[in-house]
Amino acid sequence: MPPINLAIVGVGKIVRDQHLPSVARSADFNLVATASRHGTIDGVPAYKTIDEMLDAVPSIDAVSLCMPPQYRYEAAHKALSAGKHVFLEKPPGATLSEVADLEAIAAARGVSLFASWHSRYAPAVEPAKAFLASTHIKSVEVIWKEDVRHWHPNQAWIWQAGGLGVFDPGINALSIITHILPKAAFITAATLEFPENCDAPIAAELHFKDADNLTIHAVFDWRQTGKQTWDIVAETNAGTMVLAEGGAKLSINGDLKFAEPEQEYSALYSRFAQIIKSGTSDVDIAPLRHVADAFLLGKRKSVAAFHD
Amino acid sequence: MPPINLAIVGVGKIVRDQHLPSVARSADFNLVATASRHGTIDGVPAYKTIDEMLDAVPSIDAVSLCMPPQYRYEAAHKALSAGKHVFLEKPPGATLSEVADLEAIAAARGVSLFASWHSRYAPAVEPAKAFLASTHIKSVEVIWKEDVRHWHPNQAWIWQAGGLGVFDPGINALSIITHILPKAAFITAATLEFPENCDAPIAAELHFKDADNLTIHAVFDWRQTGKQTWDIVAETNAGTMVLAEGGAKLSINGDLKFAEPEQEYSALYSRFAQIIKSGTSDVDIAPLRHVADAFLLGKRKSVAAFHD
Repeated sequence: MPPINLAIVGVGKIVRDQHLPSVARSADFNLVATASRHGTIDGVPAYKTIDEMLDAVPSIDAVSLCMPPQYRYEAAHKALSAGKHVFLEKPPGATLSEVADLEAIAAARGVSLFASWHSRYAPAVEPAKAFLASTHIKSVEVIWKEDVRHWHPNQAWIWQAGGLGVFDPGINALSIITHILPKAAFITAATLEFPENCDAPIAAELHFKDADNLTIHAVFDWRQTGKQTWDIVAETNAGTMVLAEGGAKLSINGDLKFAEPEQEYSALYSRFAQIIKSGTSDVDIAPLRHVADAFLLGKRKSVAAFHD
Repeated sequence: MPPINLAIVGVGKIVRDQHLPSVARSADFNLVATASRHGTIDGVPAYKTIDEMLDAVPSIDAVSLCMPPQYRYEAAHKALSAGKHVFLEKPPGATLSEVADLEAIAAARGVSLFASWHSRYAPAVEPAKAFLASTHIKSVEVIWKEDVRHWHPNQAWIWQAGGLGVFDPGINALSIITHILPKAAFITAATLEFPENCDAPIAAELHFKDADNLTIHAVFDWRQTGKQTWDIVAETNAGTMVLAEGGAKLSINGDLKFAEPEQEYSALYSRFAQIIKSGTSDVDIAPLRHVADAFLLGKRKSVAAFHD
């Protein structure tokens, strides 16, 4: 199979940091065009809008959509309707219903839709999943605490209604637990802390259980200065498992079992190529569904105003 | 096929008003037991819990779950795991994730799960759907305004987090539009008004569009005294369609085309018998997904405190 002609829409930080190096290393893809209001990439034909780009470059096979989620549906709809395969950055959309609609359009059009969850491809995630499958899990604790001023400086859109707030990183944790735990879980109670001047939460506490009454407790907090924590801790019959640093390191009872450099986006593009070749889609809505459930069910608490 | 032995869990107002008369009229069902903390039905064996009931009456084939949504998952899981068909009152659960889990359990167990939406069986809904399919729709307006003090006096749970607030009636409108409109739609913006002393909204305004850029505007309000309104108005190439009184009456350009007495619950039990006989499930999550999307995306506005 010849390389897949890829276009990228929404050229920003995540594209420069992650997508471009991974695509450059991949034998599966050729980058043939970009569309972005401001960003361009040296040596790659650049367009302002996805419409202009799709008109000008009919050889495009696939499109990666990397703009904020609020603008993703329209672009995805255009690309799928034009018969292009589509890679959605996480989260795949601003609502669950629009993602369901895109999934139906992709199926009807016979093209592949990939709702990507990069944290699922962190190096120690599969070893953690294998470990959990080999034992009995007694409880799970998720701790995702980071400094929003460091990671998202002056990003107004994340504080607006629909911007997800602390669930923007927290959904990475949810994408991991929905992949590594043996049974589907659901939220039974939640508290969301909204700064009094913001329309999105700065912290959240979630309680889940699954059909076997396994309890999962998650704390997301964007006010963490100093040490940053992205850990999933499981108490099991085979001891304490810590999946640390966002899925990069696995320890059992304090012994480091697995640590490799991360190559999440390379793995994502391999997966995208694979589903294109096999003519399938990969759309697991479970992480975003948990976020919507948290907003649906959660108690809102007003906390101190946040200023960048 | 002999009648299906039915049990009802959660004997309250909706059961006495709707379920019992419909089951009594149905040739498909025999009511053989109830489980409820307080309510009983004359002449029907009564148990306090679903566990006691399932143990004591092994001949039960199917169970209707009519308790508040917060308690539905556990009962549904028990009934499905015991090999019983399950009828869920609306909304089918407190979260989308738990309903997805129940659907998987029903499929694995080979029994039927019915997520019921009674308003879809209002008499003029099918004629409205047929009319809309025959023309081009230009815009849709949903107006659902009622007096919460009249319809839900002193129901503390509807004001708690997860209690849905004005979406408790509003989801009936959503269950109708997701059934009668030609394409799936999704919310693009929403405002939810929370009384300052409540954890659930008293009013909501929703903007939807679909893949063809049809716009849908919905207003739900629980502060309506005097005339109560449950109307869906569509501007079309064939004139103005009004589906009024919660789906009971259909008018085109002011001419009443269709009005019949409602028999929603009789139709629901016919549908439940039908899916049991055909060995299928009927779980359309779309109405609850729109509610979750509204909470996910919606801007929150604090309004005057509410006191019953």
